[in-house]
Amino acid sequence: MMPVIMQPNSDEVRRIILTALAEDIGHGDVTSNSTIPESLEFTLQFVAREPLVVSGIDVIGGVFEALDGQVDYQPRVLDGHAVDAGQVMASVLGNARSILAGERVALNLLQRMCGIATESARYVKAIHGTGAVILDTRKTMPGLRELDKFAVRCGGGKNHRMRLDDAVLIKDNHIAAVGSVAGAVARAKASNPATMQIEVECDTLAQVQEALDAGADMLLLDNMSLDDLCAAVALAKGKARCEASGNMTIERVRDVALTGVDFISVGRITHSVRNVDIGLDAVG
Amino acid sequence: MMPVIMQPNSDEVRRIILTALAEDIGHGDVTSNSTIPESLEFTLQFVAREPLVVSGIDVIGGVFEALDGQVDYQPRVLDGHAVDAGQVMASVLGNARSILAGERVALNLLQRMCGIATESARYVKAIHGTGAVILDTRKTMPGLRELDKFAVRCGGGKNHRMRLDDAVLIKDNHIAAVGSVAGAVARAKASNPATMQIEVECDTLAQVQEALDAGADMLLLDNMSLDDLCAAVALAKGKARCEASGNMTIERVRDVALTGVDFISVGRITHSVRNVDIGLDAVG
Amino acid sequence: MMPVIMQPNSDEVRRIILTALAEDIGHGDVTSNSTIPESLEFTLQFVAREPLVVSGIDVIGGVFEALDGQVDYQPRVLDGHAVDAGQVMASVLGNARSILAGERVALNLLQRMCGIATESARYVKAIHGTGAVILDTRKTMPGLRELDKFAVRCGGGKNHRMRLDDAVLIKDNHIAAVGSVAGAVARAKASNPATMQIEVECDTLAQVQEALDAGADMLLLDNMSLDDLCAAVALAKGKARCEASGNMTIERVRDVALTGVDFISVGRITHSVRNVDIGLDAVG
Amino acid sequence: MMPVIMQPNSDEVRRIILTALAEDIGHGDVTSNSTIPESLEFTLQFVAREPLVVSGIDVIGGVFEALDGQVDYQPRVLDGHAVDAGQVMASVLGNARSILAGERVALNLLQRMCGIATESARYVKAIHGTGAVILDTRKTMPGLRELDKFAVRCGGGKNHRMRLDDAVLIKDNHIAAVGSVAGAVARAKASNPATMQIEVECDTLAQVQEALDAGADMLLLDNMSLDDLCAAVALAKGKARCEASGNMTIERVRDVALTGVDFISVGRITHSVRNVDIGLDAVG
Amino acid sequence: MMPVIMQPNSDEVRRIILTALAEDIGHGDVTSNSTIPESLEFTLQFVAREPLVVSGIDVIGGVFEALDGQVDYQPRVLDGHAVDAGQVMASVLGNARSILAGERVALNLLQRMCGIATESARYVKAIHGTGAVILDTRKTMPGLRELDKFAVRCGGGKNHRMRLDDAVLIKDNHIAAVGSVAGAVARAKASNPATMQIEVECDTLAQVQEALDAGADMLLLDNMSLDDLCAAVALAKGKARCEASGNMTIERVRDVALTGVDFISVGRITHSVRNVDIGLDAVG
Amino acid sequence: MMPVIMQPNSDEVRRIILTALAEDIGHGDVTSNSTIPESLEFTLQFVAREPLVVSGIDVIGGVFEALDGQVDYQPRVLDGHAVDAGQVMASVLGNARSILAGERVALNLLQRMCGIATESARYVKAIHGTGAVILDTRKTMPGLRELDKFAVRCGGGKNHRMRLDDAVLIKDNHIAAVGSVAGAVARAKASNPATMQIEVECDTLAQVQEALDAGADMLLLDNMSLDDLCAAVALAKGKARCEASGNMTIERVRDVALTGVDFISVGRITHSVRNVDIGLDAVG
Repeated sequence: MMPVIMQPNSDEVRRIILTALAEDIGHGDVTSNSTIPESLEFTLQFVAREPLVVSGIDVIGGVFEALDGQVDYQPRVLDGHAVDAGQVMASVLGNARSILAGERVALNLLQRMCGIATESARYVKAIHGTGAVILDTRKTMPGLRELDKFAVRCGGGKNHRMRLDDAVLIKDNHIAAVGSVAGAVARAKASNPATMQIEVECDTLAQVQEALDAGADMLLLDNMSLDDLCAAVALAKGKARCEASGNMTIERVRDVALTGVDFISVGRITHSVRNVDIGLDAVG
Repeated sequence: MMPVIMQPNSDEVRRIILTALAEDIGHGDVTSNSTIPESLEFTLQFVAREPLVVSGIDVIGGVFEALDGQVDYQPRVLDGHAVDAGQVMASVLGNARSILAGERVALNLLQRMCGIATESARYVKAIHGTGAVILDTRKTMPGLRELDKFAVRCGGGKNHRMRLDDAVLIKDNHIAAVGSVAGAVARAKASNPATMQIEVECDTLAQVQEALDAGADMLLLDNMSLDDLCAAVALAKGKARCEASGNMTIERVRDVALTGVDFISVGRITHSVRNVDIGLDAVG
Repeated sequence: MMPVIMQPNSDEVRRIILTALAEDIGHGDVTSNSTIPESLEFTLQFVAREPLVVSGIDVIGGVFEALDGQVDYQPRVLDGHAVDAGQVMASVLGNARSILAGERVALNLLQRMCGIATESARYVKAIHGTGAVILDTRKTMPGLRELDKFAVRCGGGKNHRMRLDDAVLIKDNHIAAVGSVAGAVARAKASNPATMQIEVECDTLAQVQEALDAGADMLLLDNMSLDDLCAAVALAKGKARCEASGNMTIERVRDVALTGVDFISVGRITHSVRNVDIGLDAVG
Repeated sequence: MMPVIMQPNSDEVRRIILTALAEDIGHGDVTSNSTIPESLEFTLQFVAREPLVVSGIDVIGGVFEALDGQVDYQPRVLDGHAVDAGQVMASVLGNARSILAGERVALNLLQRMCGIATESARYVKAIHGTGAVILDTRKTMPGLRELDKFAVRCGGGKNHRMRLDDAVLIKDNHIAAVGSVAGAVARAKASNPATMQIEVECDTLAQVQEALDAGADMLLLDNMSLDDLCAAVALAKGKARCEASGNMTIERVRDVALTGVDFISVGRITHSVRNVDIGLDAVG
Repeated sequence: MMPVIMQPNSDEVRRIILTALAEDIGHGDVTSNSTIPESLEFTLQFVAREPLVVSGIDVIGGVFEALDGQVDYQPRVLDGHAVDAGQVMASVLGNARSILAGERVALNLLQRMCGIATESARYVKAIHGTGAVILDTRKTMPGLRELDKFAVRCGGGKNHRMRLDDAVLIKDNHIAAVGSVAGAVARAKASNPATMQIEVECDTLAQVQEALDAGADMLLLDNMSLDDLCAAVALAKGKARCEASGNMTIERVRDVALTGVDFISVGRITHSVRNVDIGLDAVG
Repeated sequence: MMPVIMQPNSDEVRRIILTALAEDIGHGDVTSNSTIPESLEFTLQFVAREPLVVSGIDVIGGVFEALDGQVDYQPRVLDGHAVDAGQVMASVLGNARSILAGERVALNLLQRMCGIATESARYVKAIHGTGAVILDTRKTMPGLRELDKFAVRCGGGKNHRMRLDDAVLIKDNHIAAVGSVAGAVARAKASNPATMQIEVECDTLAQVQEALDAGADMLLLDNMSLDDLCAAVALAKGKARCEASGNMTIERVRDVALTGVDFISVGRITHSVRNVDIGLDAVG
């Protein structure tokens, strides 16, 4: 049974859509409202203009739904699937004023989400067969965390923490504040819910050993050489899971995966991704 | 007297910051809250790791302000100015929990805004001396319109419409719906406030003439050849201002400017920009 | 093709209705809730008790809709049309508690909106055939801007600025701050979007000339004599549009229109208007 | 000890101010922001241009406070006091952009509130010495209930119900639904909190007797002749308080008061009042 | 005609439900969302595990409605009715993820509301036939006032003030501030709406007399002996209604009722009530 | 270094306080506003009337802060400490209207929070020295989760899941839906972030073994006998942590702790707790 892609939180998606529409439309689309007859209807199609991995095809249905419950939006592709240039991705039929009011927001969202999924899928493909898993980071677009992380899942990646509230990740500043890795882990365990996991960032093998001794559940191996990654993986075996991070180019990622780490986290798939080209074309 | 860069709307900036903090922090930073003593203070510095044009240096002060009114944030550079790699951009001194809770959001915002300003400035420089002005588009990041457009201004560009409510821009769909350019312009003039400007998108010189006859205030010349741009500019002289748009690469933009258009609009400075590299380093 | 009356912004209308209901109902209509059976239904009719111009007939349908989606509201007249005393304007059939809970808000809104439309229409009629257009001002009821300006449109007037964000209007304070009309216009042009129009308030013919030289798109001629208005119109011909304002009584307005100004703005049609008399009567 | 005028609910006042500013300013005052230097300061004065009774002099301080905590607003008169034409009512000193952004909202609010207080005071004066009290109604401006009712208090009137939740007022529709006055009063007493008062609307003396028998605490005598009012007052003596309402012109109100009723409610002091003339003038 | 139980304010119920769901679900039920197929349906039943008086049976339908409009919720008992252990109270059929997401909130609400109704009914039964009425207090669970007071009504009690805005209750601090009971009552009458009732708290018979002389509508007799209650009732006869309060145990309440007071207010039925035991069981 | 008690989320605390004040005050405290002079000040003290463990002493400072920033609130005891009857817990000095407006909400919150802390501490004391830890559940008061769980921490307990989003807890319904414990755990691991922990509910030792084989991180042993708890603990040693739950009376809890379980979860410390008695007394 193939695991499904976890959907983004629907309240958050709605918040994103309403915010985006509000900032784009303001007090009203004065052009359409003054030139287009109130009852005019037409049909437009979203068409891929380059090969891409789909993400957000259901999300943008919500853009039109938010504007006008009568618009008929029909997706033609599935999130997580790769499509070629020229593929019709969805059609939208309904009131012309409503569709034009949502056009720009829908394209802005879909082009970004497919861009992230497409880039994530490149990384996933690069480490295929190694057993490692691509993770995202918190370097997402402010306000779009939920969609950015969903798009990574569509590209075959897995998520790291969603927010600062759902797992402990002890970094250098925290260790410095307490005075030792052992102390920081002990405090984190004492104060947090019994169900919370503890991860510790390590820059050296000495820190790896210290974190393991303190009872860390997971290690973040930051900017380590391939040799050090191999050594860290060996130390942690059976005790904690290992995540590699830092300057993770597409050229280097497979070698990192081959060290045996469980996870590789990549910031650039969300913070500096290019929008893919998707058009919204008139039909007939 | 040098015109100032118009600041972004402060309510909108606040909305962006609060949203970004909410989605990143969730119900609390469980790591810092459990490991860092409540009253610990430290100082960090934002440092440019590559040459860039500054944008958002005041905005991110608001990130820390929103978390903790006692944090002392000091910008060291000005929005709109170019800085070199290694330049300290700002310092932040205060409660360690507060600063760490805001770190990621501050970096995500600043890296993007400086990225847009830097890329906009490249375009502005490319057309220096031609009399043309670089404009942005509505292809901004959903939810970040106000900051994206401010960053363009920091880079020396000027804004096109902020929202669909502040100017009329008649496109092919509107013309098709009414049946003629003349009709569309007439309807727009009749129904909108007396203070509203009318722009018309034109793909051909025939449309240019039609729009001028109808009394358009401004023309959007979309995907025209350099020759057609020259001809359109000639037709519009003294009657309407001209804006060129469509596939505006850095290589081509100067030639477009030399046709005599008033404005050149560029989508990629906001929809596909790379975050510039800025670090947040401990001091001392 | 007759231009339609632009509808008010639906989000704003909804905000007004919900606010009005909240402040009138508070925590519940304790009278109806304790005396009227939960499932009782009846029918009431809105009836004009004096001649009036209709405005808001669709808006108040939203009052009942907000309270109870099952109420059947049927307008019988059209916004913008004149009706006589005794005319049934709308009927409302449904749950008695819901209708009574909305009765007062519906009447308060409808009586005001028709009052504004009726008074606006008197001004429009007074200048019939002159070519001038009646404009409103920002002297609207706090919180009701959207409906007040819509009611002016229903009465045959046109709107001036909707808000401070959609056009530049340079007044004496702005000119004093910069030091000259020319400087103020130059700064406004430099900092605002390329699509923004510039209007300048002028009290004297000298200021008119200065504003024209600076490239103003529109002139606000404030409290000028009829002779000065004529002179200003002559100076501005082909360069800028002219708006007359100040103490615009119904007796004087036609003479002003005959000076050739494009627009006449009138504050009293929104800031001091009498509610027209409309009843809500039981049927059968 | 003179009873103080009860202040309006501060949350509601703040809601009104923020709403009014939002609808007037929208995304920003593009004129001031582009022409007036960011740090320029000046002083303006609110001046009465006709005799009036003051209301809202503290409220409008909140307008400037909401925009800019640094503006120094100084009222010079007191709510509830009568002032002559030419009287300086308040001064406002501070950032020019902030003051100009609030100018229109402040004037719109103050002119209306003083208008209501002035008209209310005319009614109060007309019945001076009779023992009767002027009441307002729920015919207030949608969204401004709290300020309208406060302005009535400033004019010397007293309030009727603030909302539908704070007292029971049984009208013809409620009686019809239950079948009798006695039944309606009984149901209202059974279901409502022990602390709630019951008023019954009566059009005839028979209804007056029926309401008294049912144990009503207060009677609303609607559109009764002076003779009937006298008779109703006699019947109700020692059992219930009496309120007269319906077409209450300034000419007729004293005769009504002389019938011995406790209260007289007047709709026109809130639903159709003229804004009084108040200017905002530069100083020095 | 039996008076109906006044329903709680629907906006407030919705606020309570949405708040409770938000705090319980947070960003999503990660367990159900990852393990339960999206379209799986099942049926569960709410079953009383001890005898109880029902309250909230319609309210909790709103929990599932808020999560998923397709869930079919069917109440099987009526608010205000007593049921035995083993009684099926309601069934809920629909999407498994939706039902599980609402399960805990529904049980938490229903167990508390039935707990309050059951305890209130014990008090009501204890004074049966005396003519006195059980009232609640403002000692309700913060945020749940509307439901707590509704549950008291379901148990056969009546409500005291809903909020501080709907009746005047003068206590010792108010009297001390003014200097006398007479002064406090006079001020309360002068400043409040004509429709507002005045209650005065009295600890001694002397205060009772003073409050009656001042024209109080209702007396709160706090912590008085049975003899003093009898005397107070005699003094107040025909002038004001009497409410007894203070340490009102189930053992003592009937004796208090027999003194002839109109009302007895009890804090513990809302501030320290035990949740009754109700299960949510799988069917079939 | 003693671990600190993690503070409740400050936004949530603020939401609770504002909601509680809004529902208690409504449109204003008509009694105080009409009887107490606007500038009168006084001092009150919170005094324990029975022995209790403190919780919420800082929270209720926020009640007065929300009403009036000038009120001086001084806590005299610390959260988590036991105090005797008669102990002054805090003093509050300031505007009399403000303090009276917050009195009821402050008492309602403090009495409940101290009630939970006091009861939790009884459980913690009962298992002292066993190595087990008392956990709470999600059976908290709707809307008060954050404070209820904080109060448990003040009593020496530790929290289980805060919300459904921060850990996976697989129960019988989830297992039934997938078909096996192994399948449910596998799906949960595949779809959730890499940082999420997995707990499985087990009713039998066979299920314990199945959950351990599937790789569960933690086991919820529900309603097991003491012998089965011992056996389960033995099976899980070194593989997963054990939590006992179900009908956890104060009499039985120590025996459960002695089986060697890591955690014991108790519902009644939050769902059916008695408010402790705390007074708010005048000073001087």
